[in-house]
Amino acid sequence: MTRPNNSRHAMSTTRAQDFPKWYQEVVREGDLAEMAHVRGCMVMKPWGYGIWERMRTLLDREIQARGCDNAYFPLFIPLSYMQKEADHVKGFAKEMAVVTHHRLEERDGRLVPAAPLDEPIIVRPTSETIIGASMAQWIQSYRDLPLRLNQWANVVRWELRPRVLLRTTEFLWQEGHTAHANRDEAMAVVHDIHRMYRQFSEGAAAIPIVPGEKSASERFPGAENTFTIEAMMQDGKALQAGTSHYLGQNFSRASDIRFLNQEGERELAYMTSWGITTRMVGAIAMTHGDDDGMCVPPRIAPSQVVVVPILRGNEHDERVTAYATKIADRLRSVTTKDGEPVRARFDDRHYRAVEKRWQWVKRGAPIVVEVGPRDEAAANVTFRSRLNPYEQRECGLDQFLSSVSDELDAIQEGLYARAHEMLLAGIRRDITTFDEAKEFFATGRGFVLTKWCGGACEEALKPLGASIRCIPSELESTAQNCLLCGGSGTMDVIIAMSY
Amino acid sequence: MTRPNNSRHAMSTTRAQDFPKWYQEVVREGDLAEMAHVRGCMVMKPWGYGIWERMRTLLDREIQARGCDNAYFPLFIPLSYMQKEADHVKGFAKEMAVVTHHRLEERDGRLVPAAPLDEPIIVRPTSETIIGASMAQWIQSYRDLPLRLNQWANVVRWELRPRVLLRTTEFLWQEGHTAHANRDEAMAVVHDIHRMYRQFSEGAAAIPIVPGEKSASERFPGAENTFTIEAMMQDGKALQAGTSHYLGQNFSRASDIRFLNQEGERELAYMTSWGITTRMVGAIAMTHGDDDGMCVPPRIAPSQVVVVPILRGNEHDERVTAYATKIADRLRSVTTKDGEPVRARFDDRHYRAVEKRWQWVKRGAPIVVEVGPRDEAAANVTFRSRLNPYEQRECGLDQFLSSVSDELDAIQEGLYARAHEMLLAGIRRDITTFDEAKEFFATGRGFVLTKWCGGACEEALKPLGASIRCIPSELESTAQNCLLCGGSGTMDVIIAMSY
Repeated sequence: MTRPNNSRHAMSTTRAQDFPKWYQEVVREGDLAEMAHVRGCMVMKPWGYGIWERMRTLLDREIQARGCDNAYFPLFIPLSYMQKEADHVKGFAKEMAVVTHHRLEERDGRLVPAAPLDEPIIVRPTSETIIGASMAQWIQSYRDLPLRLNQWANVVRWELRPRVLLRTTEFLWQEGHTAHANRDEAMAVVHDIHRMYRQFSEGAAAIPIVPGEKSASERFPGAENTFTIEAMMQDGKALQAGTSHYLGQNFSRASDIRFLNQEGERELAYMTSWGITTRMVGAIAMTHGDDDGMCVPPRIAPSQVVVVPILRGNEHDERVTAYATKIADRLRSVTTKDGEPVRARFDDRHYRAVEKRWQWVKRGAPIVVEVGPRDEAAANVTFRSRLNPYEQRECGLDQFLSSVSDELDAIQEGLYARAHEMLLAGIRRDITTFDEAKEFFATGRGFVLTKWCGGACEEALKPLGASIRCIPSELESTAQNCLLCGGSGTMDVIIAMSY
Repeated sequence: MTRPNNSRHAMSTTRAQDFPKWYQEVVREGDLAEMAHVRGCMVMKPWGYGIWERMRTLLDREIQARGCDNAYFPLFIPLSYMQKEADHVKGFAKEMAVVTHHRLEERDGRLVPAAPLDEPIIVRPTSETIIGASMAQWIQSYRDLPLRLNQWANVVRWELRPRVLLRTTEFLWQEGHTAHANRDEAMAVVHDIHRMYRQFSEGAAAIPIVPGEKSASERFPGAENTFTIEAMMQDGKALQAGTSHYLGQNFSRASDIRFLNQEGERELAYMTSWGITTRMVGAIAMTHGDDDGMCVPPRIAPSQVVVVPILRGNEHDERVTAYATKIADRLRSVTTKDGEPVRARFDDRHYRAVEKRWQWVKRGAPIVVEVGPRDEAAANVTFRSRLNPYEQRECGLDQFLSSVSDELDAIQEGLYARAHEMLLAGIRRDITTFDEAKEFFATGRGFVLTKWCGGACEEALKPLGASIRCIPSELESTAQNCLLCGGSGTMDVIIAMSY
């Protein structure tokens, strides 16, 4: 549980040595999650789930503020629903869990499926079709629009190559679904949510991103436009951190969602959908983690300050415990710039203090306070910031309480600045030919900013293991020609390998 | 949408006329939930789901305060896990959704299940076995105990006779799971949670209950003791509102959850589990609803005060809208006795004010304010309490703001008092023979408080459609003999029909 003496860092594998192996270790040692015995499914442990809960709280506030109501729709979708939208079914049909029986019976001492269903049902991979069925009933006239719904739920997409937190058969997400009386209003929501995701990623998760639109081949199956925020992991690969889709009238046609417009005519509604998932917890690990483990941005840390008493089984223990408790209590009466009390945790588990300290470093708690007899006697606080767990700092309790909010801000900003620098350094503008790109992706990693003609030459990226991540809305390439085919470059694109 | 003119009440069926039909109407007209097209599954609409979210917020606070951490475990459970605990499998095996395939393929234009799984998996009906598998890995020594986990999740139990909110194939719940180093500590948690559920039911949901223990035949499959809170619906039937189970070492034996105790010996952990579900939303409807629809206790109402502007498409509209907005804004700056701002909603949808008022009455919003030009001119507030939607009251804005918290309390207490009176009146102590019980349950409904010998005569209740709901911890029957067999009555019991 402690930092190994024979290593300079708490992780036995560094990022430079083996990034995928390092990531597995960060997730395990950081108590974020672990794979379950059911293939491809994961267990989110309290610390990792706590990060997701914080993200959920912050995002939900934003979603509610936009007039979206939370609701809950069934886990199961009739097979016939999935068949209604042709592109949708093509995109999802290959990776779904299918329920075929509703009973088990004991035969020869073993449980076997019994009572087959008349029609198999699938476990939702996404809820456009099932929510569409309700919307078709709820929407009668323009007065029922806009209809803005959001759902926090689990979804299942069968993964043949699962990776903990990043790509799991079951994952948790938020899925927004809205219906509108016209295209402009729907599109305005898509853009607003796209901005909301960006602000959330940068402001709360401290993850800088490249905003943009997906090319046709990378869109959500059934969407007319998909907007994305693409983050860069420390190995230079892209991670799609949140998408918002303009669905046009494709799903309203499939589900027959019509409204009587102000002219008294029946018209198909204009739809959007958008989501952010638990893979964001993995993105935080791969963006901010270091060779000592996870780093959690203070705004989404389940505990922002952890107070560890140093107990030696002697006469000081009682006073140390009382003082450590007092520090945690007084921290909870400090308000951070988020307008919420500091999330302070008093860790009185029966482990040695040094073990607990390293456990919290590996979990990425922003600040760890260790309380010994000398601190108690002097009314001092000895603490470490996760930005530098090797530097121990000390100050008076009152000073600590009055500066802790600034200290948390400094960690939040420090993590963002470090990640932003990495992103900027990782955007390559100097790769101008397909051969150069081929060579680059064979060894290097990063975002190649270049031009594309918009044509089928996109396919040529597949053998390289890369793809067009987005048509960025803010970055411009100085290239003239399409990197892939040499034709006329009509749009800027980011090309990268991805998770 | 409005109150029918030909009826004295907003519900077309009254409780007295046809309770089950009345309930269906309350759920539908109150926008709580509706059955989905997948047999037995339901859609929780924003208002009904909002009630669940409020319950979740309040309960989660209590659960966290007890040192339980939230986590998330897989939806899918390997078949082999379910077989480990013999009683558990007997109790659940008959009603589970079984996943047998992980892909769909198109054949002759139809989607059919493809790629069968090596071992079928089941959709969790409850999570003792899958959480047990993790606990077995996480628990090594007494220092890892107690381990206290809670999960908010969806679970599936195939229902052959589904009823919206009360008995659905998929439902949402909170399930707590704890492991302890000894029986006393585990049992203390079971009792503490039992008290917590009671306080939540009475204090937040305003539902009075009878606390007690289940008889052996009604226990959770695999538990050694099950404690329950039994509520009485307005038709006199019982509804089990929350259960807490002492599992002893049954599940730790099945999942091999062992810890090194302080004497250095490996010992099986002592376990508990406990849960409350979305059926509680149905219980609120059947406890507090009246012939005008749903009544939501203010503490769990998604909106406590709804402000409806009366707009007539004339020159007053702008000032009325501004004044109504101001009332809602100022309400949000009032703090209730819960220490939270008043949940005020400004309803500016394009429906007539009278339609909206009745919609909110049927949904059970505690207070509805209607704002017209005269209110605006006089800085007055015209409002109705859900306790009496036919009485319109009026006062100055400042007075309304200073009294609204008390008004909400009065509604909360009024609902509890009404329900408590009903419960007390519904407990029958005068039924002393089996024949009397038979006659009573043939026509009447209520809780029969009597004595039981503890024997197999319990079975005799089945033909009556009744069962032993609990061995109450606070009520005492003056009967001497077992109601069922006439033998010596060794314990008090509540016998009732139930949901």
